[in-house]
Amino acid sequence: MTNIPLGADRLGRQIAFMVEVDKLKEVFRQTKLINSHRQENDAEHSWHLCLTVILLAEYANSPDLDVLRVLKMVILHDLVEIDAGDTFAYDTARMVDQHEREARAADRIFGMLPDDQTAEFRACWDEFEAQETPEAQFALSCDRFQPMLLNLMTDGASWKEHGITHDRVVARNGCVEKGSKPMWERMFAMLEEAVKLGIVAPRP
Amino acid sequence: MTNIPLGADRLGRQIAFMVEVDKLKEVFRQTKLINSHRQENDAEHSWHLCLTVILLAEYANSPDLDVLRVLKMVILHDLVEIDAGDTFAYDTARMVDQHEREARAADRIFGMLPDDQTAEFRACWDEFEAQETPEAQFALSCDRFQPMLLNLMTDGASWKEHGITHDRVVARNGCVEKGSKPMWERMFAMLEEAVKLGIVAPRP
Repeated sequence: MTNIPLGADRLGRQIAFMVEVDKLKEVFRQTKLINSHRQENDAEHSWHLCLTVILLAEYANSPDLDVLRVLKMVILHDLVEIDAGDTFAYDTARMVDQHEREARAADRIFGMLPDDQTAEFRACWDEFEAQETPEAQFALSCDRFQPMLLNLMTDGASWKEHGITHDRVVARNGCVEKGSKPMWERMFAMLEEAVKLGIVAPRP
Repeated sequence: MTNIPLGADRLGRQIAFMVEVDKLKEVFRQTKLINSHRQENDAEHSWHLCLTVILLAEYANSPDLDVLRVLKMVILHDLVEIDAGDTFAYDTARMVDQHEREARAADRIFGMLPDDQTAEFRACWDEFEAQETPEAQFALSCDRFQPMLLNLMTDGASWKEHGITHDRVVARNGCVEKGSKPMWERMFAMLEEAVKLGIVAPRP
């Protein structure tokens, strides 16, 4: 990285944040891309969620969803993984201290910003984590729907790799219903179909 | 890709669109990532723009910017490159028919959606291309600021690779000022500094 001065003022600190978050493009997930089957990274996953939010907002359970708020959450939700790494959705051992690791990361990463923006971005992330508002719930619906779709379209690649069965997929992702009943119903039907097609194994 | 049925109804068509746009993660740009120096793809670039929009919206020339509208534009602006490919910012030969190639791509890609969303997404893309609204101008400011920053932070990697000199960078990107005067002033100052540091060559 070059030593070009970014400035210590407000804009300079914001630009330094832009530089820092470039690292999200190097955090890889278990999900595979549909065409090349390479692992997806957190930055492109976050973009796919943004697209999903504006595409499917009409299916949110809440009739007056604040779409801008949902977008801010999905743009920011994975930044903590720059420090904490991606925790695989079915890795129950690593999940034990996941929130603690990620909260430390949030302190450092959002702490790079001017105070008002540290507070604003942290509040977005906290709201997503708390899962109490319709916006946070719909953001999570998208965050779970998208990797399931990629798994379905790659013949269950990462489920097969990790021996994840249908019952575990349903138990882990049933929360999609909290943000969007129609999205969960459709996904549930596709998962049933996927069992028939051998894309995901039934309960052992 | 698996043959799991997505459904021919409204939601099914929207899900097919989610599948189609996964290809954006496989369209590579000339810009290099700051840490690994691999080429950036359009999906992670689009996410970085979303982040930039919510981070730097306060510097938009327009005092009442519609941030949600800007986000929709940056989420969608590069989808046409799934068909048309990335056109390097300094490739004047390929730029001749760029808009025509991209408009054909917009017809096909946005045309996959239900009619109302085809119209909505196409209008976003057309607005960005036309560069007449403050939202389109600020979206473009971010779209130009971000790759210049990545170039600065990678010691001018893609500028050096393609022999791009300071005067061409300024000529190509001066439009940043239309959306945000402070962002352009800061970038201009960083580019001057970059000439002194040998990151970008002066006018030949």
